[in-house]
Amino acid sequence: MYFHALIPFKPVNPKTRLSCILNQEEREAFARAMLEDVIASVLKSGCSATLLCTHPFKHDDALIAVRKESLNEAINWALAQFHCPALIIMADLALVTAGDIQRLIRTEKDMAIVPGRGGGTNAIFLKKPKCFHADFYGASFLDHLRIAAECNFSVDVIDSFRMSTDIDEKEDLVEILIHGKGRKSREFLESLGISLLIDEKGRVRVERDAHKETL
Amino acid sequence: MYFHALIPFKPVNPKTRLSCILNQEEREAFARAMLEDVIASVLKSGCSATLLCTHPFKHDDALIAVRKESLNEAINWALAQFHCPALIIMADLALVTAGDIQRLIRTEKDMAIVPGRGGGTNAIFLKKPKCFHADFYGASFLDHLRIAAECNFSVDVIDSFRMSTDIDEKEDLVEILIHGKGRKSREFLESLGISLLIDEKGRVRVERDAHKETL
Repeated sequence: MYFHALIPFKPVNPKTRLSCILNQEEREAFARAMLEDVIASVLKSGCSATLLCTHPFKHDDALIAVRKESLNEAINWALAQFHCPALIIMADLALVTAGDIQRLIRTEKDMAIVPGRGGGTNAIFLKKPKCFHADFYGASFLDHLRIAAECNFSVDVIDSFRMSTDIDEKEDLVEILIHGKGRKSREFLESLGISLLIDEKGRVRVERDAHKETL
Repeated sequence: MYFHALIPFKPVNPKTRLSCILNQEEREAFARAMLEDVIASVLKSGCSATLLCTHPFKHDDALIAVRKESLNEAINWALAQFHCPALIIMADLALVTAGDIQRLIRTEKDMAIVPGRGGGTNAIFLKKPKCFHADFYGASFLDHLRIAAECNFSVDVIDSFRMSTDIDEKEDLVEILIHGKGRKSREFLESLGISLLIDEKGRVRVERDAHKETL
């Protein structure tokens, strides 16, 4: 194993912005499907997976820590334990590949960071995790660059469409259906009868077949 | 010069989905500012720039072809003239760098393609342009892969956040303000008093200072 990958995960009532197309049980199953895609890529990259969970959860291929505090506090609790490089990666990067993760962990800089859309941060690789602290709200990408500067870290910004694509809203599902061939998250969406649709303006949307059963 | 870069450009009333924050004159100036960013990166990458314009337009550093037909017809008209490799790149990739373009033109495959968000295509590099035809509506990324297969092209899908980010809507401006340091498009937005704002849900938005003059 190369390094620890920390994956924050919310097993109960996750992805509420998808409520317009998925009920709670479906959102929980979908979040698990995306998590499976992320864990598979993490393990294939040579890293081990540790899930930071908000509620009790079981997984055959990952260590679990259930933490009741906020996302940042949970991550910072974990970082403080690490004596070796660590990767923090979000559980909803349904398109991430092992090769993408290797772009992070092979950096020559002290830190590699992947911006998410809308100012967010989707993954951080830290060679000296103890010095750092996470700040995953608001314009977290800029905040993390500032924290890195305070630590005197050299920084590699990794330019990746797949890793910048976190899945929060209905429109984001388009990316999984277009680019997610072979992914568990795509299989799950298709099993619910969710498919692509070109609207009257030529834009790509998703629609759900009303005849398919809900979970 | 390495290759020709074809850049479709609409100088008159472009980017209508930004009407909620920019008036027509501002949208035209903003589209030109993004075009400047794209042309600068194209030239720095070693390519020459040819603008396929819907209306008369002048530029000191680019060739101009004014074409009245649709986007696809204009591109296909241009591709048919090319006896050497060609790059097609959108004029609203405000974050593209010369290094990003080199990732495309250095491909070992017959074609390199950059997906845009929502199923689109933001750039295509073609070693044998004559064989290909563009189809830039709807799920164009999947359509272009299909057309490439019909041409028996090997295909490199380039994974890039910067190049996947085309600027169509108000929320897309966030990306320029966060990642566009030194860009003319960012300077232009800032000159209008457009800046970042964290909303009550912790999401990053843009706002416009009502006291600044309109163009």
